[in-house]
Amino acid sequence: MRSTVSKMLRSQAKLLDFGRRQWTVSCLSRFLSQDSKLTLVEVDDETGITTLTMNRPPVNSCNLELLQDLKESIKQIECNKSRGLILTSSNDRVFSSGLDLNEMHKPNQERLVAFWRTLQEMWLSLYLCSVPTAAAINGHALAVGCVLSAACEYRVMLPGFNIGIHATKFGYVVPPFIVNSYLSVLPRFIVERALLQGKLFTTEEALQVQLIDEVANSKNEAISKCADFITSFAGTNPEARALTKRQFRDQDVQLLIDDPEGQLHECLEYINSPFMQDNLDGYLAKLKSKNKK
Amino acid sequence: MRSTVSKMLRSQAKLLDFGRRQWTVSCLSRFLSQDSKLTLVEVDDETGITTLTMNRPPVNSCNLELLQDLKESIKQIECNKSRGLILTSSNDRVFSSGLDLNEMHKPNQERLVAFWRTLQEMWLSLYLCSVPTAAAINGHALAVGCVLSAACEYRVMLPGFNIGIHATKFGYVVPPFIVNSYLSVLPRFIVERALLQGKLFTTEEALQVQLIDEVANSKNEAISKCADFITSFAGTNPEARALTKRQFRDQDVQLLIDDPEGQLHECLEYINSPFMQDNLDGYLAKLKSKNKK
Amino acid sequence: MRSTVSKMLRSQAKLLDFGRRQWTVSCLSRFLSQDSKLTLVEVDDETGITTLTMNRPPVNSCNLELLQDLKESIKQIECNKSRGLILTSSNDRVFSSGLDLNEMHKPNQERLVAFWRTLQEMWLSLYLCSVPTAAAINGHALAVGCVLSAACEYRVMLPGFNIGIHATKFGYVVPPFIVNSYLSVLPRFIVERALLQGKLFTTEEALQVQLIDEVANSKNEAISKCADFITSFAGTNPEARALTKRQFRDQDVQLLIDDPEGQLHECLEYINSPFMQDNLDGYLAKLKSKNKK
Repeated sequence: MRSTVSKMLRSQAKLLDFGRRQWTVSCLSRFLSQDSKLTLVEVDDETGITTLTMNRPPVNSCNLELLQDLKESIKQIECNKSRGLILTSSNDRVFSSGLDLNEMHKPNQERLVAFWRTLQEMWLSLYLCSVPTAAAINGHALAVGCVLSAACEYRVMLPGFNIGIHATKFGYVVPPFIVNSYLSVLPRFIVERALLQGKLFTTEEALQVQLIDEVANSKNEAISKCADFITSFAGTNPEARALTKRQFRDQDVQLLIDDPEGQLHECLEYINSPFMQDNLDGYLAKLKSKNKK
Repeated sequence: MRSTVSKMLRSQAKLLDFGRRQWTVSCLSRFLSQDSKLTLVEVDDETGITTLTMNRPPVNSCNLELLQDLKESIKQIECNKSRGLILTSSNDRVFSSGLDLNEMHKPNQERLVAFWRTLQEMWLSLYLCSVPTAAAINGHALAVGCVLSAACEYRVMLPGFNIGIHATKFGYVVPPFIVNSYLSVLPRFIVERALLQGKLFTTEEALQVQLIDEVANSKNEAISKCADFITSFAGTNPEARALTKRQFRDQDVQLLIDDPEGQLHECLEYINSPFMQDNLDGYLAKLKSKNKK
Repeated sequence: MRSTVSKMLRSQAKLLDFGRRQWTVSCLSRFLSQDSKLTLVEVDDETGITTLTMNRPPVNSCNLELLQDLKESIKQIECNKSRGLILTSSNDRVFSSGLDLNEMHKPNQERLVAFWRTLQEMWLSLYLCSVPTAAAINGHALAVGCVLSAACEYRVMLPGFNIGIHATKFGYVVPPFIVNSYLSVLPRFIVERALLQGKLFTTEEALQVQLIDEVANSKNEAISKCADFITSFAGTNPEARALTKRQFRDQDVQLLIDDPEGQLHECLEYINSPFMQDNLDGYLAKLKSKNKK
């Protein structure tokens, strides 16, 4: 761990002591919108735990607007000092199909910049979220769907679905923050092979390699198991828990925090390359003809 | 691994070739005291293995003096070119309860500096100890008790006890060297969760995640199993073994070796913060009322 | 991961788009020799997979010439855009006995420089090879024999043999690239212990810790299982696969790519030290007397 970690810790310790008022004010001044249609935010009055539901039909593919909503909702849940956050889907077959490839195929450049910047920021919000996080994976979790799950601290999945990052299947090379996200959950040799093969794990395979922690037979049971995990922190000091998490995960996000625009620029360059655009052409055509049948 | 590792290796290779005399002299000139009361050092004449017993009643909580004794004893064992070091406790219920929180609560600043500096140095001595090390964990190993065990190369534990780092329970954020110590033994995702939950593993749970290597039914059996581990190095070249260990572990201690005073300063700042002092107030009051019942 | 990774990725993305012609030219202009006697290169016309067989009697100990042949063969296979590479041995008892210690014992300095430089370059070629790689380990894989296996993406081994890095047994401290190679396959705590003990795993032990992926009952079966692994990449984009592998492994080879001559220099200094030469004296004498019996 680098000295930046220590600096952060020290400055956060100061924050804890001197800055609580300001933090609260900044949170209150955040626009507390009603649920958008793309995400639903519900607090369980009994447990104090918040459920964040992705709700972009048909398959929760992440376009700019869903990413923005997710980012705002995560920040709001954190500011409200929720007991914890459970991420799930309103679709009972698909948790998330990943990024909306239309955002990347022959893109409008201005929108592409906003799209990828929001992806980076949303992922950071979830990965570094100060409250306990868990994913109730009630359907297929593909590509960014898997990345969102891996960014949480706990994963419960329903049987009969797939989870994984299949980027090599459509010619995409995932950026370092996505690799790190996988590495935070799985042993290195499994990550390398899964990334190279574009492996989609069945629920059973995912449990075996511990990509998920538990299997549940219904969405309700999955949410209840996630709540049990979140409740396991009852005896801990929330600030110390949050700082420990931040210190632990900080090394994985160094690049993205130190140089977000550099990371953004490199990803955009890759997305805009003829190599990647050709791959997307082919992949989207294949998907289209598959859907016609 | 960084080039400093290589530099160290090279300079150690030179040391091995040219400096053996000096090393021996420096070791002999070290004050070879009789056992203090806080630690016992015994050499098994048959095996050549040294047992280092923590002996600060009632529960081996680590105050400044115990840390100093441990550090000196480890250095002495290393200098005497013992076949190996087995760390254990004279108490048959508690291996170590961790740091003596009285050293950190409303502390005398001068003593606090000595206390934390000695903790850092003692831990380095054990973690980088050139002879094979093993822990015979014959009781609860809490917080620094667990850290000491994890710094050894092998762990044998008696059933019915707990081991773990429960710092988040009393509002403490462990410094990087303690995180690295845990990471040297356990997979990353287990470390993160255990640190955040302040998890104390039962002997059985510890065996399952391989925080310990074996379970023994008595202290004697634990020591005997530790001795077997140490004997497994019989066929190796001791200098090559020591250099390989040093090279392997060097990356984990970089921060502490490059900038011990900076690390010290940050830890003291955190300990002295009102946030941490309040947490200690509450935790010590709770312990006190618990002990009265 | 460092920014160099991103730079590499970006430059490789450019390479993919603009430089395909040049790459092909450079490959074609490489001297496509017939098999030397020290390695055999065979392409399976049906699968398009290439088998690379080490063939230096009696035990495939790696001298300068074998290392040169291996390096050239790996480059050739990569340039020919083979479907994959399977590494095996023509000897049915020994995959490889490791480095030829005669290259390191009382060495001719000029030859020693060439020997170690070729070792570094050959290992880089295999570790970063753009096509899928697998090892059919049909005999003992000792020291560099194990390192070669670990550099591949998949390992199938025949029963009744040993695999491991036993350098501490003859007083050698392995350089960082060999440590990283072990760490790319095994959990950290297993690597440390195995390196310190100079542990040779039986086939069964190797399977248990997942140093190997599968056991096969014959060389043919091993090669067939390796081919199955290579075929598992059929659905992926070869360029994206190659870039993902390169990005993933790049952090492990940073030292060797940034400063090959520095790494070389330090290894030579160590090999030439009286300490290491004395160890080799003793070890080679022991081997000699053992072989006489």
